[in-house]
Amino acid sequence: MSEVVFRGGTILTIDPAHRVIPGDVAFVDGVITHVGGSYTPQSRDYQIVDCAGTVIMPGLVQAHVHTCQTLARGRADDLELLDWLRKVIWPYEAALDEEAAGTSAELACAELLLGGTTAILDMGTVHHTDAIFAAAQMSGIRATIGKAMMDADDPQIPPGLRESTSASLDESEALIKRWHGRTNGRLRYAYAPRFVLSCTDELLREVGVQAKARGVRIHTHASENEGEVALVRARFGKDNIVVLDELGLLGDHICIAHCIHLSSQERSLLAARGAHVCHCPSSNLKLASGIAQVPELIAAGVAVALGADGAPCNNNLDGFMELRLAALLHKHRAGPRALPAPEVVRMATLGGAAALGLANQIGSLEIGKRADVIAVDTTALHTVPTGSPWSAIAYATQACDVKHVAVDGNIVVHDKKLMTLEVPKVRERAKQAAARLFR
Amino acid sequence: MSEVVFRGGTILTIDPAHRVIPGDVAFVDGVITHVGGSYTPQSRDYQIVDCAGTVIMPGLVQAHVHTCQTLARGRADDLELLDWLRKVIWPYEAALDEEAAGTSAELACAELLLGGTTAILDMGTVHHTDAIFAAAQMSGIRATIGKAMMDADDPQIPPGLRESTSASLDESEALIKRWHGRTNGRLRYAYAPRFVLSCTDELLREVGVQAKARGVRIHTHASENEGEVALVRARFGKDNIVVLDELGLLGDHICIAHCIHLSSQERSLLAARGAHVCHCPSSNLKLASGIAQVPELIAAGVAVALGADGAPCNNNLDGFMELRLAALLHKHRAGPRALPAPEVVRMATLGGAAALGLANQIGSLEIGKRADVIAVDTTALHTVPTGSPWSAIAYATQACDVKHVAVDGNIVVHDKKLMTLEVPKVRERAKQAAARLFR
Repeated sequence: MSEVVFRGGTILTIDPAHRVIPGDVAFVDGVITHVGGSYTPQSRDYQIVDCAGTVIMPGLVQAHVHTCQTLARGRADDLELLDWLRKVIWPYEAALDEEAAGTSAELACAELLLGGTTAILDMGTVHHTDAIFAAAQMSGIRATIGKAMMDADDPQIPPGLRESTSASLDESEALIKRWHGRTNGRLRYAYAPRFVLSCTDELLREVGVQAKARGVRIHTHASENEGEVALVRARFGKDNIVVLDELGLLGDHICIAHCIHLSSQERSLLAARGAHVCHCPSSNLKLASGIAQVPELIAAGVAVALGADGAPCNNNLDGFMELRLAALLHKHRAGPRALPAPEVVRMATLGGAAALGLANQIGSLEIGKRADVIAVDTTALHTVPTGSPWSAIAYATQACDVKHVAVDGNIVVHDKKLMTLEVPKVRERAKQAAARLFR
Repeated sequence: MSEVVFRGGTILTIDPAHRVIPGDVAFVDGVITHVGGSYTPQSRDYQIVDCAGTVIMPGLVQAHVHTCQTLARGRADDLELLDWLRKVIWPYEAALDEEAAGTSAELACAELLLGGTTAILDMGTVHHTDAIFAAAQMSGIRATIGKAMMDADDPQIPPGLRESTSASLDESEALIKRWHGRTNGRLRYAYAPRFVLSCTDELLREVGVQAKARGVRIHTHASENEGEVALVRARFGKDNIVVLDELGLLGDHICIAHCIHLSSQERSLLAARGAHVCHCPSSNLKLASGIAQVPELIAAGVAVALGADGAPCNNNLDGFMELRLAALLHKHRAGPRALPAPEVVRMATLGGAAALGLANQIGSLEIGKRADVIAVDTTALHTVPTGSPWSAIAYATQACDVKHVAVDGNIVVHDKKLMTLEVPKVRERAKQAAARLFR
């Protein structure tokens, strides 16, 4: 029995009553056993983590990231999506070897954990998915990872990324066998057809069938860019979300990044199928893709999560920055009461957990859930005075305020120090790999 | 003779050639004497500041802040401008006593300096301007401060803030005598008529005359909100900027915050008069005011600076956050090449200096300028690998990455530690004052 007590903070439970209570959060062998008030350890094997002056809350969950792209940070500024993909990102991904893919994922996971993100849905790339899983495993993050599937006969996809339909499906199957459910369920696989235009219809149909049969999630992109939407219409004569539905992909097991350019019919269809949308506001602005109609999606009944997307389009992986930007960005169009602080904090935590199919396990601090818990310092001057913990977390705190992080009960960040990886080594390996890739 | 050497970083000069050079920045008695390469101190009285792994650049200049509002952080979320002013902010400002005003300004200046902002244009409030000046003086920040002028006969302005025209002008005159040019020119006064609707025409005309006569700047708000614009039209039958011009206020000595809802005629008028606009993207989104047409303003020839506005509408005073948001926010409408990284970094430094009328003294690292210099750490994982220093500063770094700060040659932040004020005391005084004001 191993007990941990996050002692003495202001607790944002994100439970159904959205309770805010002072006190301790305790967990035993990775399971939350106590929330609020004062807790006395029940065993001799316990650790007390001082959380005075912090907000204790569920870890942030990012339902759309590309950990393999982190080495391209600052290398692909000021481009539109399709140019950005074809001129920089796909050639970069094609040039990644196994070591560089692992190094990139390691850097991403370290940054994510230090910034309070405890769980991710990762797009991966076409190859080297084992290296990405291994990096996530070492780092201690909770990760659902897919290999990006790209079997379309598109001459703009570099040879290093193109694959056959059968190779794409076979590799996915092998990855499921090797990784899905590993490390106490902390690592999982998700089918990741990159987007409709990068895949054959045959592949997409088969992913729809196999994902349901195996109980595995689907992770994709859709309707990020007007050019992309036009190409989908040209190929299918239909809108993107309708195409995904007809190919058998929609359901509550899919998480679709972006969903910016949607008709109201597509919004209704997403809601009817229970599909999850991942909103990535920084990336969408930087690539000039547009602003997702998040208040309208929510009003239509669509479940929305948040994600930083990849480092080349953000340029960091800071969940608090996305949370704040989401809270701000929709008000100028939908009014100052759109996405109030508690709603967007819930989106960044329980909303992400739901997008990963893990809402019964993580995303809130409730007895019986897995202990993915963070403590966010609110004593830095930029959060003083703390008028309300909701307001502080939504609008004022930043990744650098994250003090302690536990994932599945393990303390992975303590007093702002990463416990699982050596930061100087991560930094040096990343610099060397980037120098090699961009020489 | 007192020499300081910021040793061994990547220098963003923001000079006319936008040079990026490695090496040292040295200053003697507050004046920059050396930029780039290796520098050997010329005297015995010198201090070496280790800047390895940092970007050395001019301090950020925020051309619109309200330091007196910092105690209301997190107390006025989710309201539109006019409600926000009348229901929370004006009653709060009316309730401020001298001690609370000083405490609020002290908290703001400490947060600003720790986040790399070395100079501000501050709106103040109607009273207690001496306390704000005193706080700025103690903190070491470069500050141009006005008392907010509010002599309009508007029943919605609380009695504690209403003043007569003569009292407003007399107090301004007394403040100029006491503070303008003090502390080696680090402190200056600016006339601060709050906005057209809060002032009589008589006051505004007199401010126009006196500002020119005394060589003092003008700081105001305009066209932040559609309701405000409609009220100005109803009162004058003209657009806001036209009114300011006819009252004699426009010129290169005025800095106008927001300027969101402008006609193209108003943009041309601003450009023709050389007026400065301060863009406050976080505040504008949070109050649902709109998005200023910054690329159009720049295309029309208007000089644009950046500012965080006040803590209740932001909710912090982080110049790096405004810089990043400005860089992102205009791309989705004006394309991915709008406001590229070097342009927005220049806006946040030299653009701010120009708005304060100090472009010949600060805003770039050039020999002969005053030493307002910061060193920003780029070794944190969220800035690794650093593809380009422009990209890192525009998109990836955050206030918490600021390592060293010098203002007018004095080191006010060293290794992320504020040297001028005791942070625990600032925090406690702020908490106590806020508890008193919001009980």
